[in-house]
This record gives sequence, C-alpha cells and structure tokens, in this order.
Amino acid sequence: MTTPDERLTAVLDRIRPADADAIAGAREWQDRLTKPAGALGRIEDVSVRLAGLTGSVPPPIPTPAAVAVFAADTGVHAQGVTPWPQEVTAQMVANFLTGGAAVNVLAAQVGATVTVVDVGIATPLPELPSALTESDQLVRAPVRAGSRDFTVEPALTREETLQAVLLGVDVAERLVAAGAHCLVPGDMGIANTTPSAALISVFTGASPETVTGRGTGIDDVTLAVKVDVVRRGLERHRPDPADPIDVLAAVGGLEHAALTGFLLAAAAHRVPVVLDGVTTGAAALAAAALAPAARDGWFAGHRSVEPGAAATLTALELAPLLDLELRLGEGSGALLALPLVQSAAHILAEMATFDSAGVSEKPAGVSEKG
Amino acid sequence: MTTPDERLTAVLDRIRPADADAIAGAREWQDRLTKPAGALGRIEDVSVRLAGLTGSVPPPIPTPAAVAVFAADTGVHAQGVTPWPQEVTAQMVANFLTGGAAVNVLAAQVGATVTVVDVGIATPLPELPSALTESDQLVRAPVRAGSRDFTVEPALTREETLQAVLLGVDVAERLVAAGAHCLVPGDMGIANTTPSAALISVFTGASPETVTGRGTGIDDVTLAVKVDVVRRGLERHRPDPADPIDVLAAVGGLEHAALTGFLLAAAAHRVPVVLDGVTTGAAALAAAALAPAARDGWFAGHRSVEPGAAATLTALELAPLLDLELRLGEGSGALLALPLVQSAAHILAEMATFDSAGVSEKPAGVSEKG
Repeated sequence: MTTPDERLTAVLDRIRPADADAIAGAREWQDRLTKPAGALGRIEDVSVRLAGLTGSVPPPIPTPAAVAVFAADTGVHAQGVTPWPQEVTAQMVANFLTGGAAVNVLAAQVGATVTVVDVGIATPLPELPSALTESDQLVRAPVRAGSRDFTVEPALTREETLQAVLLGVDVAERLVAAGAHCLVPGDMGIANTTPSAALISVFTGASPETVTGRGTGIDDVTLAVKVDVVRRGLERHRPDPADPIDVLAAVGGLEHAALTGFLLAAAAHRVPVVLDGVTTGAAALAAAALAPAARDGWFAGHRSVEPGAAATLTALELAPLLDLELRLGEGSGALLALPLVQSAAHILAEMATFDSAGVSEKPAGVSEKG
Repeated sequence: MTTPDERLTAVLDRIRPADADAIAGAREWQDRLTKPAGALGRIEDVSVRLAGLTGSVPPPIPTPAAVAVFAADTGVHAQGVTPWPQEVTAQMVANFLTGGAAVNVLAAQVGATVTVVDVGIATPLPELPSALTESDQLVRAPVRAGSRDFTVEPALTREETLQAVLLGVDVAERLVAAGAHCLVPGDMGIANTTPSAALISVFTGASPETVTGRGTGIDDVTLAVKVDVVRRGLERHRPDPADPIDVLAAVGGLEHAALTGFLLAAAAHRVPVVLDGVTTGAAALAAAALAPAARDGWFAGHRSVEPGAAATLTALELAPLLDLELRLGEGSGALLALPLVQSAAHILAEMATFDSAGVSEKPAGVSEKG
C-alpha cells in the first residue's frame, strides 16, 4: 500500500532539470532561421525553454492545451476579506460548466478543454442538467467543505493537504493521458487571494503589506482587514518554508494544494505549463519549494496587478509574457498568453533557414549586437 | 478624371472618430459580465475600442485577418547603414511566397492570409514557380526600383509618393472586399529602419540620436553612421510635419508611403488594424498626421526594442499589447498580438452576464476600486 507521502515522493523523483543539449541545439537552430539573430526576442527564449523541457529540437507544438480550474472555498472568508458572498464560488462553477465564464470563452478560442475540479466548495452547486454535472468536465472530489479559518486554526490538516495535492497530480495525469500537450492551471474561490498572499509572504519573505492586494477590487478598509488577516495567520502558525506541505496546511487553501500537485505532475511528465495569476503563482512557489527544477517547464503567462504577483515572478525567476492589468484568475491570463507559447514552437519548427530559403546572411566577420 | 490628390482626399474624408455611444455601451456591457469589474484590464479596453470603431456592441470578431507585407528598397542603403546586402529584400520576398518566413508561420497559426506587395524592390526576384509569382499572394506594382538616397536628394517625388500611398489604399480595399475583418501591415526592406527613424524624428520632434536604433543588430560604428545619415537627411530637406506627403517624399520610403495609405484605408472602412514595429509605426505617424481620427482603429501590437518605437507609441497615444523585445518587422509582432485583440472581442460577445448565469453580484453599496 503506497502512502500519500510515498506517492508525492515518486512524483518529485521524476522531476529533472531542463535538457542542456536541447537548449543549446534550439539556440543554434534559432540563429539559422531567416531573420536577424535574436529578432524575435523573448519568443525565441520561449522556444528554447520548450526544447529544454521536452528534450527535442524542435519541441512539439504545445497544443491542444487543457485547463483545470480548481475550485474551493476559503475559511478566512468569515473574516470579511471580500464583499462577495461565498456562494459565488459554486455559482461560478455552474457558469464554467455552462460555458459562460471568461475561461470558457478564451479556452474555446485556442481549442483548449476546461475541466472543473471541486476540491472543496463550501456551498451546494446550483441545479444543473446531469449531462453537465456527470460529464468529464466536472471532477467532484472535495477534500472538505472549504479550508478552515487560519486566523483561528490551521487551514488544513497535513493529511487533507496531501490528499488535495495528489488530486492535482491525478487531474494532471488524466489530462496528459487524454492527449494534452500543455497544461493550464486555473482557480476559483471567493477570498482565495488572501491565502495566496499568505503563501507568497512565506515563500518570498515579503511582508503581508507588500503582497496583499485588492483581489476583485476591495476598498481601503477591507484591504486593511485583509492585510491584518494575513499577518495574524502568519504570526499564529509561523510556517516553515522548508516544509512546503506544512505551509500549505497552515495558511493555504485546498485549491492551492491541488494546484501544487498539478504543477508538479506537469513537470514530472515534461508537459509545459502556462501560469496564471497570484493563486496559481502562490501554488507554484510551493511546488518550486518542493522541486526547484519544476520551474523549467513553466511559462509565466502574465504579471497580475495583484502586488504579490511581482514578488512571485521574481522568486520563480520567470519573466511574464503579458502585462495587461489582469486580475481575474480562472486561468484566464494564462490562456491569453498561450498563443505566444505556441507561436514560439511554431517558429522553431516551421521557419526556413538561410540555407534552405537561399537568403544571404550578412557578410561574415561583421559584428552584430543582437 | 480623378487626380491622386483627389483620391487621397476622398479616403481622408471617410475617416470618422470612434462612435461614443458604442464605447459607452461596450463599457456598460463589460461591467455586466461574470467577472469583477475591470478584472480583464486592458483586454476590456481593447473590446471597448473595437466597439467604438465598428459602432456595434459587441463588435464583430476581428477574424479572418489579412497581412500585407510592403516590400521596397531604400536609397540610403548606399550610405552603409547596414551590413546586409540589398538583394536580401528580394530574397525575403521569395521566402514569403514559399512560406518560410516568420510572418508566414505566425499568419498560419491564426488563419491569416499573407499578401506581398512589391512597391519598389531594387533587385530582381529569385526564380520562383509561376504559380507563386502569378498568384494573388504577390502584387507587383513597383513605383520605382527603390527610393533615392535622401542624403543627396529627396527620396521620392510627390507623384511617386502619392502613387505608393494609393497602392496601399488599393491593397487594403482589395483585402477588405475579400472578407478581411482585421488588417495587419507588414514591411520588408533592407535598411528601412533608417527612413523610419527619419520619419519618427520629424513627426515626434525627437532627435535622430534618440530614435535611431540598431535595426537588425548593427554595431556601434554602423549605428553612428546611421544616426548621421538621418541627421543629414533631415538637415538637407527640413521636411514640414504639417505636410505629411512631403515628409514621406523627402525622407521616407516607398513602403512607408504604401503603409500610410493602407492604414488610412483601413480607418476609412472601419476595419481594425494591429500595428507592428518602427516601420509600420513611422507610417502610422504619417497617416495620423493626415487624419488623426484614424488612430481610433489601430491597436499597437507591441513595443519594439528599436528606440523609435517608444516615441512613436507615445505620439500615437497607443499602449502596446506586448513588450517582448521584438525587432523583426514583416508584421510578425502584430500577428503575435492579434489573438489578444480577437480575445477581447470574444469576451464581450460570448461571456455570460450576472443575470443570465445566475451569479450573485457583490452587495450593492459596497465600494470597489476596480
């Protein structure tokens, strides 16, 4: 009988750093394509990282993509960190299933599937046709009805945390087995930017004031409450960043734990991931703390306006592809960036070289900056 | 018999500012969609501008797109502003026709057509199958075999300039008639960032040193030559920014003139345009000088690393969608940004509203920043 700890260790053991030979080969191939060296800037870098992750030059096109939106509720909602009622989490899950949310619209544009995972929604789902609730689109595997209020007690037990992490692993593995060549993590949970800020504070060392933001757009009074909630949670539990599972249990959420597993499994299977905003970013910090090499397979979709996003990206050493003042979650910002990641792979795979196209290179010996 | 001046005036007379009612209606509709108000940041702004341009809420999805790559050679190539030989312009046109260039790869990804327009290539095209050279993909309408060296004489006569402008108008109108719902201007011409810098200097008032860059990646010595060439051209001709056709004739290129007409015709037909880098940007400055309202239909695809790009975007009052250290031209940066413009339209057209999805809004009276 495999224990949850053993299952997690098996995933972590599969995660390897990027392939240095493929990186070098992709960089060299870029310089043979019919354009001035470096003229496609960071798109070239993305193509090189894809090659490093997958170990092939050119790397496979990261399509089709599969989005998994991990939905859960958050105990600190009780502390008044947001004006939105908690049942909006369940209502938005219904919206995902009927196809009306931003994530659905953006996924349809790029031909990505959307799977919604109930990892711990606190209120009942609205009535929906069974064709929707019983489809593969919805995975109902709640660990518990939302996390606990971390200003009072740990948000989760260690067992609950591991259960959620392994659910994320399972979802990623199921999507990869079904043919996904790119994974997009999404989140839904009213109040979940509060545990996100707490996690970011722990893993980056930044203060609660620095990384706690307005989420859906809260006012100054609510923001002060939210910062205080984060601060009190961290003072109560003093989680140790060297024990990421303990950090997730103390001040994280079920969706953060599941996203952590999802990101680790993607890395274990060497499938690229496009990260979204602060909630997936907070989970990415936990995952990177467990397996730093996992970052080699992640692409930062955007820099959210949430202040924790910048600290997260700096800590992950990832440069965002977009900076469009996004702050929605659901995987929406990642889906907006996904075509850029796909473009990078198309460029490396499909452009002609100077030789093949009969285009003159500039005279040898002429120095060049780019 | 209509004169070229009369034809241009007819295009300019059709250009109208954005529809204020559609802008207000689109903004209001965005706030009813199932997301916190403003959570999709600048994507929402793009959707509102598309509504203003097209006068409908939601606006049509800007797809399919059509790219027109205007290819020409540049007289100041003789001054040693680049190490690349001039025949690369013709060789790259062949590469466009056989599908091996970046613009082809990126256009294929988004289902856009690519039309190459010879508005003045100086050297013969390489041998190509007649199926390619006689297809609609290639428009051969050279005004002359490249512009003249503007350090010695005006680059073009006023008649040549107008002929190129009207060719750009014709190409845009042909693509719109063929069903394009978005136009993407591209450019190809070895040494064409030199006239681009000259145009940007005239229209923005910035110094040649500030707006002249390394183009394909030239070294410090060549950069100093290039800055001096721009400076000498401007000192010789002292073009008047109040007479944009004269500016194009003095220090522009055939591709800049054609792009100017292309951008004006798009605005006249209220078809959105995604701008690329400094060459299309320089043409956009000329077009905006002729018809300021034309800008209402343009979306800045990216901020090129060429230093003139920032001055151009500031003068056009357009915020770039991407900032990925691109400097290729061909329309490549615009194509990378195009999916974002399409996403904006999809969001406005396809997302559910709070009412339709049965999602609770936050309690009335709760203040919100976003």
